[in-house]
Order: sequence, then C-alpha cells, then structure tokens
Amino acid sequence: MAVERTLHTPEAEQLLDLTREIVDKELLPRAAGDEDNAVFPREVFGTLGAAGLLGLPYSSDHGGGDQPYEVYLQVVEELARGWLAVGLGVSVHTLSCYPMAAFGTDEQRAAHLPDMLGGDMLGAYCLSEAASGSDAAALTTRAEDTGRGYRVNGAKAWITHGGRADYYTLFARTGGPGSGAKGISCFHVPAGTPGLDAAAPEHKMGMNSSPTAGVLFDGVELDEGALIGPRDQGFGIALSALDSGRLGIAACAVGVAQAALDAAVSYSRERHQFGRAIGDFQGVGFMLADMATQVAASRELYLAAARLRDAGRPFGERAAMAKLMATDTAMRVTTDAVQVFGGYGYTRDFPVERYMREAKVLQIVEGTNQVQRMVISRHLARS
Amino acid sequence: MAVERTLHTPEAEQLLDLTREIVDKELLPRAAGDEDNAVFPREVFGTLGAAGLLGLPYSSDHGGGDQPYEVYLQVVEELARGWLAVGLGVSVHTLSCYPMAAFGTDEQRAAHLPDMLGGDMLGAYCLSEAASGSDAAALTTRAEDTGRGYRVNGAKAWITHGGRADYYTLFARTGGPGSGAKGISCFHVPAGTPGLDAAAPEHKMGMNSSPTAGVLFDGVELDEGALIGPRDQGFGIALSALDSGRLGIAACAVGVAQAALDAAVSYSRERHQFGRAIGDFQGVGFMLADMATQVAASRELYLAAARLRDAGRPFGERAAMAKLMATDTAMRVTTDAVQVFGGYGYTRDFPVERYMREAKVLQIVEGTNQVQRMVISRHLARS
Amino acid sequence: MAVERTLHTPEAEQLLDLTREIVDKELLPRAAGDEDNAVFPREVFGTLGAAGLLGLPYSSDHGGGDQPYEVYLQVVEELARGWLAVGLGVSVHTLSCYPMAAFGTDEQRAAHLPDMLGGDMLGAYCLSEAASGSDAAALTTRAEDTGRGYRVNGAKAWITHGGRADYYTLFARTGGPGSGAKGISCFHVPAGTPGLDAAAPEHKMGMNSSPTAGVLFDGVELDEGALIGPRDQGFGIALSALDSGRLGIAACAVGVAQAALDAAVSYSRERHQFGRAIGDFQGVGFMLADMATQVAASRELYLAAARLRDAGRPFGERAAMAKLMATDTAMRVTTDAVQVFGGYGYTRDFPVERYMREAKVLQIVEGTNQVQRMVISRHLARS
Amino acid sequence: MAVERTLHTPEAEQLLDLTREIVDKELLPRAAGDEDNAVFPREVFGTLGAAGLLGLPYSSDHGGGDQPYEVYLQVVEELARGWLAVGLGVSVHTLSCYPMAAFGTDEQRAAHLPDMLGGDMLGAYCLSEAASGSDAAALTTRAEDTGRGYRVNGAKAWITHGGRADYYTLFARTGGPGSGAKGISCFHVPAGTPGLDAAAPEHKMGMNSSPTAGVLFDGVELDEGALIGPRDQGFGIALSALDSGRLGIAACAVGVAQAALDAAVSYSRERHQFGRAIGDFQGVGFMLADMATQVAASRELYLAAARLRDAGRPFGERAAMAKLMATDTAMRVTTDAVQVFGGYGYTRDFPVERYMREAKVLQIVEGTNQVQRMVISRHLARS
Repeated sequence: MAVERTLHTPEAEQLLDLTREIVDKELLPRAAGDEDNAVFPREVFGTLGAAGLLGLPYSSDHGGGDQPYEVYLQVVEELARGWLAVGLGVSVHTLSCYPMAAFGTDEQRAAHLPDMLGGDMLGAYCLSEAASGSDAAALTTRAEDTGRGYRVNGAKAWITHGGRADYYTLFARTGGPGSGAKGISCFHVPAGTPGLDAAAPEHKMGMNSSPTAGVLFDGVELDEGALIGPRDQGFGIALSALDSGRLGIAACAVGVAQAALDAAVSYSRERHQFGRAIGDFQGVGFMLADMATQVAASRELYLAAARLRDAGRPFGERAAMAKLMATDTAMRVTTDAVQVFGGYGYTRDFPVERYMREAKVLQIVEGTNQVQRMVISRHLARS
Repeated sequence: MAVERTLHTPEAEQLLDLTREIVDKELLPRAAGDEDNAVFPREVFGTLGAAGLLGLPYSSDHGGGDQPYEVYLQVVEELARGWLAVGLGVSVHTLSCYPMAAFGTDEQRAAHLPDMLGGDMLGAYCLSEAASGSDAAALTTRAEDTGRGYRVNGAKAWITHGGRADYYTLFARTGGPGSGAKGISCFHVPAGTPGLDAAAPEHKMGMNSSPTAGVLFDGVELDEGALIGPRDQGFGIALSALDSGRLGIAACAVGVAQAALDAAVSYSRERHQFGRAIGDFQGVGFMLADMATQVAASRELYLAAARLRDAGRPFGERAAMAKLMATDTAMRVTTDAVQVFGGYGYTRDFPVERYMREAKVLQIVEGTNQVQRMVISRHLARS
Repeated sequence: MAVERTLHTPEAEQLLDLTREIVDKELLPRAAGDEDNAVFPREVFGTLGAAGLLGLPYSSDHGGGDQPYEVYLQVVEELARGWLAVGLGVSVHTLSCYPMAAFGTDEQRAAHLPDMLGGDMLGAYCLSEAASGSDAAALTTRAEDTGRGYRVNGAKAWITHGGRADYYTLFARTGGPGSGAKGISCFHVPAGTPGLDAAAPEHKMGMNSSPTAGVLFDGVELDEGALIGPRDQGFGIALSALDSGRLGIAACAVGVAQAALDAAVSYSRERHQFGRAIGDFQGVGFMLADMATQVAASRELYLAAARLRDAGRPFGERAAMAKLMATDTAMRVTTDAVQVFGGYGYTRDFPVERYMREAKVLQIVEGTNQVQRMVISRHLARS
Repeated sequence: MAVERTLHTPEAEQLLDLTREIVDKELLPRAAGDEDNAVFPREVFGTLGAAGLLGLPYSSDHGGGDQPYEVYLQVVEELARGWLAVGLGVSVHTLSCYPMAAFGTDEQRAAHLPDMLGGDMLGAYCLSEAASGSDAAALTTRAEDTGRGYRVNGAKAWITHGGRADYYTLFARTGGPGSGAKGISCFHVPAGTPGLDAAAPEHKMGMNSSPTAGVLFDGVELDEGALIGPRDQGFGIALSALDSGRLGIAACAVGVAQAALDAAVSYSRERHQFGRAIGDFQGVGFMLADMATQVAASRELYLAAARLRDAGRPFGERAAMAKLMATDTAMRVTTDAVQVFGGYGYTRDFPVERYMREAKVLQIVEGTNQVQRMVISRHLARS
C-alpha cells in the first residue's frame, strides 16, 4: 500500500525508495520497542546522514542534497510513517540548520554545515521558554554583550533533542527587557560549552524516544562568531525558520496519519463480524473513506505550500494552513484508526494506539494550532 | 483578492485572465437578479464558446482547447465563483461532450463536436432516473433495436439543462430487463427529435437559473448513427464520464466556497462590534482561518486529481475524494459565511445566503457524497 | 412519530395534545404555501391566544397559563415543528411580554397583560440596531426626558413582527451618549403612536412568513406610564429577557430539527436503492442515528435549563448552552435531512429544503452563536 | 467547581456528598501513581461497598441501596471524574450483578447478592470473545449439559476484572452451534472453580489500573444452581443488562470529560500569554464553551434515559444515544483539554493526557459506537 507519489526526477524517486528501504529495515522493526523503553535512536540519524538524507533541502556546497522542499518533505513523511520520533527529529534538525544555512557567513557555513548536514552533529532548536510558548517574542533568556562576545543566562523549555543534541540553535535577548521582537539574536552553541546543561527529559504521553527537555544556560560564554545573522534581528530568523519547520510538522502528521490509515484499512479487510469483513459495512467503510480523503488533502496542501517555497514565493500562510490541517487530520485519523480495531486497537499489541498518542503532540509543537489560526487570520485580514 | 494560482503556460494565464474578465463583466452583475427570476443565461454559453472556453479539455482537431484538465478545472472554478449556474452548466456540458469525444467515431466527432465545443449546441447528460439515482445501473429507459436503429421509451430525471439543451447524451437499456450494468448503451439525441419532451423545470432551493427537469422519451426513433461507442457498453462510458464530471463539481464547489470566503473576509474587516472589526475577534478570525484552510485543501485535492488524469494515470478514487471534500467544504464554508454576516447574511441583500442555498446541491449531484464514499471505500478495500 | 415526552401533570398533557392538534389542523396544511407567498399568519396567533397557548409561562392573574417553562417550551417546540414562523413568533411575543410581566407595576400589568397574553395584542421586541447587533449596550436610539414623558428618536433593526405588531417593547438610551449599559430604559410603545413607522420587511433566505423589519422612531412622544421598570436599568431587563428568550429559540430549533429528522426517517424507509430501503444502509442509517442523538440531547439540554429557571435557580449559562447546541444541531440535521432525500430534497416539493433555510436564522437571532460562546466562556472564567 | 446537580431527595444529596468525599480523599491522591504502575485498587471497592455505594440501584432486600438509576449514575460519574478505573469498575460490577438481581431465584439472590452488593465479592461480565466483539450472538463458548449441571469450554476476551474478580457472570452456548441468539444461557461462576483461569492482563493505552484479560474455561464444571434465568434465554438477559451497562459507560464518560474540562478551565485562568489569561482569548474561550456545552448535554441525555428506566419505560434507544454522545464527547473534550495545556498537557505532570488516553476506551466498550448507531438506526426504522 505504498503511497502513489508524483515525483519529477529520477533522483527524487531514488531518494524516496532509499527512504522506504531504511524505514522498512531500520525503523519499523524497532520503533514500538524503543518507544516503550524511551530509547533515543541516535545512531539512526547517523545512518540517515550517511545516506544523504539529513541535509536534503540545503546546498551541496556544504554537504546538502540540493533537493526541493517538495522532495525533502516527502522523505520526512515516509520517515514519520515508520517512526515519528525519527521523522520529527529530522524535521527539527533541519530547522536547527536553517539559520546557519540561510543567514550564516561563508566562514560559519564552511565550518559547521558539513557536520550538521552529514549527521555527525545533531541539532536542537532553542526558542520556547516556560512562560512564552505561543508568544515567542516575550522570551527572557539574556545574551549580554561582554565586549568579547556574549554571556547567556536563562532557561529554554520543550527542546526536542535537549540534552542529546550536539549543538543548540539559540534565540536570546540582546536588547533591553522591553525590546520585544526587536531585541532578539540567534546563536550557535556547541553542546559542551561550560554552563550549558539540560534538565531530565519530560515524561510524555508518547514520543518518548524523542527526548524533550529544558535546556539551562548558566553564564554560558560565547564568542562573537557564535552570532548567526545580524544582531537583534533573530526574531525574523526564528519566524522564517518556523514557516519551513511547520511544513516539516505537516509532513510528519501526514506520515503518522497514513500509517494509521494503512493499518486500519488492512485490519478492516481481515477482521470479520456478522459474517463479513468489517470494511464491507458502510459504518466502517465510510469512516475509512473520510480518513483517506483527509490524509490525501493534507498531503496535497503541504506539497502545494512546498512548491511555493521552492518557487521563491511567499508561503507562510500556506505553511500554517498545512500544519493546521495535517495535524488536525492526524489526530482524527489516528483516533478513528483505533476505533476500527476496536478493543485490539486499545492494546499495545497493535501500533494504532501509539499513533494516536503521537499525533497529539503535532497539534501543539512549532506553534499550537491556535497560533496557526492566528497566523492565517492575520494573512486574511491583510489580503 | 484574486486566488493566487500556479499556472505553467502563458496560455493558461491568459485563459484564466479572460475567464476572470468575463466573470466580472458578464456574470457578477446579473447573477443575483437572474437567479431570483429563474432566468437561464443561455447566451452566456455562446459567449464562453466564442471565447474558446467551452471545449478546453478537448482536442483542437474538433474545436477544443487542448488544455490539460488542471487548467480547464480552474476555469470552471472561476466561473462558479461568479455564478454557479454557469460553472456547473459548463461542467455538465463538458460531461455531455465526453462520450462523443472519447468514444465517438471520427465521422461522429467531425459532425458534432465543433458545434458542441463552440457553444452553438448546448448539451445535457441523461443518466439518472426517478427510481435510480445512486444506483445508475438499475436504469429502465429502453432503447429497442428496430432493425434500422433504436426506439427509446422511458423517463429521465434530474437533467440539468433539461428542456433547454440542444442535444441529450442519453444512456438507455439495450439489453434485457435483467442485464444490469451490462446492457446499457450511449446515444446522441438532438433536441428536436419527435417524441422527446421535457417536463416543467423543478422548483428548487437554489440554482433556479440552471434548469433541472425530467426528460421524456416517448417512442423516440434514433438511427444507427446515434449510438456512441460499442453497444451494451455504455455503463463503462457513463462511469468514466462521471470520474471526470466529479472533478468539475469539485471545481464548482471550490468556486462557490471561495466566493463565500471572500465575501466573509471582506465583511469581517468592515463590520465593527465592541469597537473593533469583527475579524479581529478570534471567534470570527479563527472561523475564517478554518474556512480558508478547507478551501485551499479542497482546491489542491482536485488539482492533484486533475494532474493524475492529465498524466494518463488512474484518477477515479482521487476524483471521488475531491468531489466529497470540496462539496462538504462548500456547504460548511457557505453556512459559516452567512454566520459572519449575522442578520445581514440571512437577507437577499448580500450574496452569501445564495451561496449557501447553491452549495447544498453540490453534495448531491453526480453521485451523492454517500456514493463518493462507496467509491473510495471500494478502492481502499482493493488497495 | 410523536416525540415521547415526560410531562408531570394532566394539564400539561392536555396542552401538548391541544398544541399538536392545532399544528396538524391549522399549521401544517398552510405553512409551505404561506412561506412561498410571504403571508404572515396573524390570525393563527389569535387562535393560539384563544386556546390559552400564548401566555403559558405567565401568571393567571393577568390571563396567563401558570405553566412552568418546561411545559411552555415544549409547546413552542411543537409549534415550530409545524411552522417555525409561528413557533418563533410565539417565542418573540412571549419575550416582548416579559419586561411588563416581570417589572411592570400592578397598574401597567392590569392594563396591558390580558390583551397581550390573550392574543389580541401581538408584540415585538425592539433591542437591536443596525450597528449594534451583538453589542447591544452600544444602542443609540434616544429617549429624551421631556418633563412630561419621553421623546424617542432612532432606528431599530431586525425586528420580528416589525410593522405587524400591536405594540413594541422598546429599549432606548435615557442616559448620556457615553452611558453604555447603564443608561438604557425599557418602554411599552403601542403600534399607532405618531412618529413610529416600520420599513419594508427584509427579503430573507427563509422565514418570509415572519416579517422582519426596521422600526423607526421619529419624535415619538411617550408619557411617563410607558416606562417599564426603573429608569436607566433597562439593560438588565433586556439581558434577563434574553436568557428566557434563548430558551425559546432552543425549543424552536429542536422543533425544526425534529421535523427534518421525522421527514428523513420516513423517507429512508420508503426510498429504495440497490434493492433495499436506503435507511438499511449504514451510510444513511448511521447519519440518521447521529441526527436523532443530537436532537434528543438538544431537547434534554433546554429542558434541564428550563427546570433550573422553574426552580428559581440561575439558568443564564445553561440557556446559552441550549441555544448554541440546539441551533447548531438544527443547522446540521436539516442539512443532512436534505442529503437523505437526495435530489428530491433540493426541490420545493418536500419540506426539508425549507427546514434548512429556516434553521440558519436560529444560529443568528437573540445572540449569534458566537455571542452564546462569549456568555458561556465568561461563566466558565468565573466558575 | 463541583457540578451543580438537581437531586430530589436528601438521601441522594448525602450519597453524592459521600461520593465526592471518597473521591477527594481516596481516589484523587493515588489515581495517577497507581495508573502508572498498573496497580488495581481492589480495596477501594471494599470501601465503596462498606459505604453503601456498590449496590445502589438494587433492592435493599439484598443489601442494595434502593436508589433510582438517576442517582446511581451520578455517583458513577463522580467516581469516574476522580478515577475512571474505579468508576468503570463500579459500572461493570453493577452490570455483573444485574442478571442475578433481575432474573435470579429468591434462593440465588439470598445466597449471592449480599456479598456482591456489599463489596466482598467483585464481579466480571463474561460476554465478549475474540472473534465476536460487536456480534455477541456469535459466541462459541460451550456449556454442555452433563445431566448434573454444565461443563464449560471456551475463551472469553476483553474481560474487565478478568483474573481479579471473585465471580464471573458468564454467557455460554447451551444450544447447538447454529442456535445463534436463541441458544445462549447465563451462569454464575465463582472465581476459584477448577478449570477457570485468566490470561495475563492486556497492556493498554490507558486504564492500566483496571485489569482487562481473557478468561479461559477449560472443562469448568457447574452445578444446576449456577444457571441464572431460563436456559437458552441468556441473550435477552445480556442485551437487557447491556442497556443498563451503557448508561454506566455514559456516566463514566461524562465524569472523565468533566474532569478534563475542569482542569482546562482552571489552567486557562492561570496561564498567561501575550499579557492575558489564555482563557480570555476567544480562540481558547470558545473552545472551552463548546466543551462545556457538550459535557452538559451528554449529562442531561444520560439522566433523561435513566429517568425513563426508573419509570419502567423503554430506554434502550436512549441508552445507546447517551453512550454514543457521552463517549464521543469525552474523546473530543479530553483531546481539546490537552490542547488548552499546550506542551504541558502532553506531559505526565498534568492529568489531562491520562484523561485522553482513558476516554478512548469508552468509545469501544459495551458496544462500540458503531454498534450504538446500529441500535439507534434500528429503533428509528421501527419508529
């Protein structure tokens, strides 16, 4: 039941084939067990890097894949279909590379990107704080100018790969306390830097193979070269990164939803009640039809947004729409997939209950779906 | 607030520009008034034919536009945005041309298609009967072999353009009473043929500018040349025509929904309550965001299905999904658009109440949305 | 398929029986025709008054029925099941009596209530203005103190029975322009008063038998006795009336939804496709089950709110919930009822298309459903 | 934020107060921890029995509480608000008592009911089998007549309290293999009976404090006195028990939904973003309003069904509606409650993620919601 895709180059076909192969061989066999035991599959990112799947949308000048977002996102979707912790991990890592790739100096890029895109250095994206989730511009982590660089104090929250990343793409306040969105800068912070520490990972409803943790900055000293892009203009970088990151989440959501749909369709053909396959009853068959339609529409929506991005056109509104629709779809479809399985679906013997627990986080990360609606309604108000 | 589209040829850009111009000048000024008075805008189809907009997806060998379905459907969407009776009329007319264009002999095509595609001959599609709506294979209209041709007796129901069309693309039973889907043939029947008559148009909830009427065949004599495609294989032709026709309905639905969304967004910026534009309240703004997201997703879904068709790949499941999603979206979005307008929206002074009355028919025609779910669930069961 | 009700007194049983008899004999035979022709059935209110059904929740001291709201609302529901214009008319009339009955002096009540509750004097409730729909406290109609009484200038909008009522229960500003909710008073204004005029009725999507019109006050002179309740405290009266009025709208919504459900269930047993009654297909049967469940829940919600009111307990939050849920249910259920009928449902030959057009107004009147959500969320914030 | 209830006797008030006290003192402090560790709180059922809360709807002749179902169900709701495993456990236990209480001989009742209703003997209800979930009449567990009694062979699945119950209310086939619904009988089987064994408890998405396990009958010998009610008429007993049991599930669902709503409302007042409590944003406030409305409507629907039962009127359709609506509501409301908490809601530090995992099982047990829709649509088809 491989998803029928329209890919425009042989290279893209090969990348998707390679991805599906890795999913089948490396992810599917261990996802359930590792999630139960909260094992972070760090080495999988190495495998993906070695296979050239970690830097797809970035320039080959620094080890990237030169692929359009349309292709990169389908790779993320397939990975998430196999194991959300990996699909989301790749999306977050790609997000963490974005400021460096888009705003870094040639020197910075040459120094860092090859390792970042090759899988040797895994990244985390440090924007959220405990008190500023949706309201990112209210962040309070300070980066004081020391003359020779910056001294960072503060605490970041909800950091994917927190404590396991090799570097942190950090947003901190370089302006005064009232500087709002205008006094934020972006930094590259290697994991071992003194004063940098991570809290214990959160104990979550799902996705326990993907560590989420607070990251603490206690007098962390950075030199000038750690600054990415112009000082005080980090908020624009963060927002622009998020537009892309939301497409990654949309692709992840479609992957999880597709996995749940595939499982439900398959089960509906095998399970018999009242003498017929349950999928032959319209009560189940129509539910599956609605699920499949929503998944297909979500996929087309993120692909269309990706093509806008690839064409250099504004895509922020579409990215927000794709994130909103795909993740709401994933929540509904995974919940209904459990329903198709009945009691079996509620047990850990089948993967659908895991998909349902995983889907929920996607409605929350990289802007809750309420934030997406704010973004979209503002675009409409200006249209 | 023109919809931002991605078109791949200058010709397509021009076709869309031309369409929007006709919409602005010819449709928008008269739609509301003509709908109130149940005026059928026959001459508009002449205008569209003259402008080359009536035969877009067919071969230029017979007067068509050689355009991919992806472009044709966006033209239909823009027409429906201006006036659903016209958008749907074009979709139905295109459907009525399909059997001739796809299965007619060279002679038949040369004789008929130029007038059909040029707007001189407007068509109707005669498949439904009063007792066989969703169950088309149960139709009972008979076409008896007379040796010299066929004699048709029976009654068709719910025929768009019934009584106003210049020809009828007819499906009738040439096999025995129990022949089911295997004894149906397709015919081309000119409007003036003796014995052919139309009942009075239905008095409907909306779309009264688009005549819907029963068409009666009382001993209608057809010669051999009226048969389109192989005898007894008309049901396959009908289904294949419907796959394409459903995409037309999906495009119409997106057009109506977009019109309603545009009206609601515009009103939400002008109308103030509690000292602010109502669109600034999340209660309205989030509703608009959801509406816009659903409209965008519906559009991408029909476009993706169209690209499959254009590439010669199977697209029936995707067409059913697009029809299902787009028309459910149109119903929701138009209902919510009235809500944004409040009491004003419930009056005939604003177009949103008309959009809502129009949207409902789209969930019913060319296969109710229950039939679409049957189609999709069967595809899933075979996948 | 009469709704099974739990009534606690023989009197209530008789009132419901009487109501159903009037519905069957007086309303059902003429509703469709009169709606098509925008005929206002003024004399029906006389019949209802004579039958003792117009003043049910008010004291028998002034001609009322001494019935609990729980009974009164079920009468309204049954009337709305037969003809929404009548059910809503009774609800609005009852609303227009409320300030007099609850806040009038003994003298005022003795002078006016008997005719109001007996059906001789039909009322209208004049609160809304063109610019202040949801934000009622922003009303600008002025009632200037003239020493001998009040002189009223301003324009009211969206007034049910506007131009046909025998009296208007008016809310006008007696405080200064900035007095907000604190400078509004309530008045009783007989229809013939010089300077009072009504605009032409709105041309609406449905409910054209229920006139809705602007009401103009051009130097209307009122004497002191026209003031109901304490001066400047009319906004509290208006809100308290609305709490009760919302229950009336909820009952109307359940009535319309029940009518649509009954029609759809009945049709689903008669209409056959694929050799079976369509209701035997889960695709239709499950839709009917959801519709029936929502209707039943909406009814129980308004009945529970009514019992709170009858027990003298706070019921405003519950009334808002009942209005929200019942009217959203009516919109969904009537839309789905048309779907069950397929093409037939879209014609004026069956009543379901009318129910759908009627349902929409209920999501808007007496506080849009957005206003209900504001009311409820404020209660939650204080809970 | 205690739910405002209308109770009709001081005794009922006291029972609810007592329940809330036990919830606060015994359930809330340990629910989260015990669920994490899959601890079955067996002794809580003893406490409830001692407090007179285990046999509420049964006759005081055998130790019951003589309470109407309306009161009993509100007690279940409150218990489920505190800990679903307990609320559901009480509902299942009550279900397991029903055949004995309603169909047992005086002798059987005197022998067993006091211990069952007093909390000494905890029950399980053995109807489902692995291959017959929704299609209960297809069960294959055999009870062969041995002359002296019955010998039972077969396997039951999805048994709540399986392996922990003190007795099993068993449904087994006493007719031939083709006897369908007509050859099933009901038995009382003490836990220690030789040949009776339980499989390991299922590892579930949630509700791990409530053991669910297969129960195996391997040549279990029962004497004649084990038969409850007439031989071969057990299926009617099972269905009638389920009608009542579904009300218990509905009450549980309302309890979980209320707990989630309370948590979300409370958090929405404390959490600030963009300088305001998040509940002050309509995006959150309206979501809470919809949640609260659905919870209130679900409660009224089960209460109304309970009053029908208490009045000796048919209530099966209403019970199915209540189960359907309340559990769909619980799923939606708990999912949205997590959303209100954002990232915090996804962690195990707050209870909302647990509520969401728990809610899912309620859409499945005692008839999936698809089965409820079958039940309701059949009632409609006969109405």
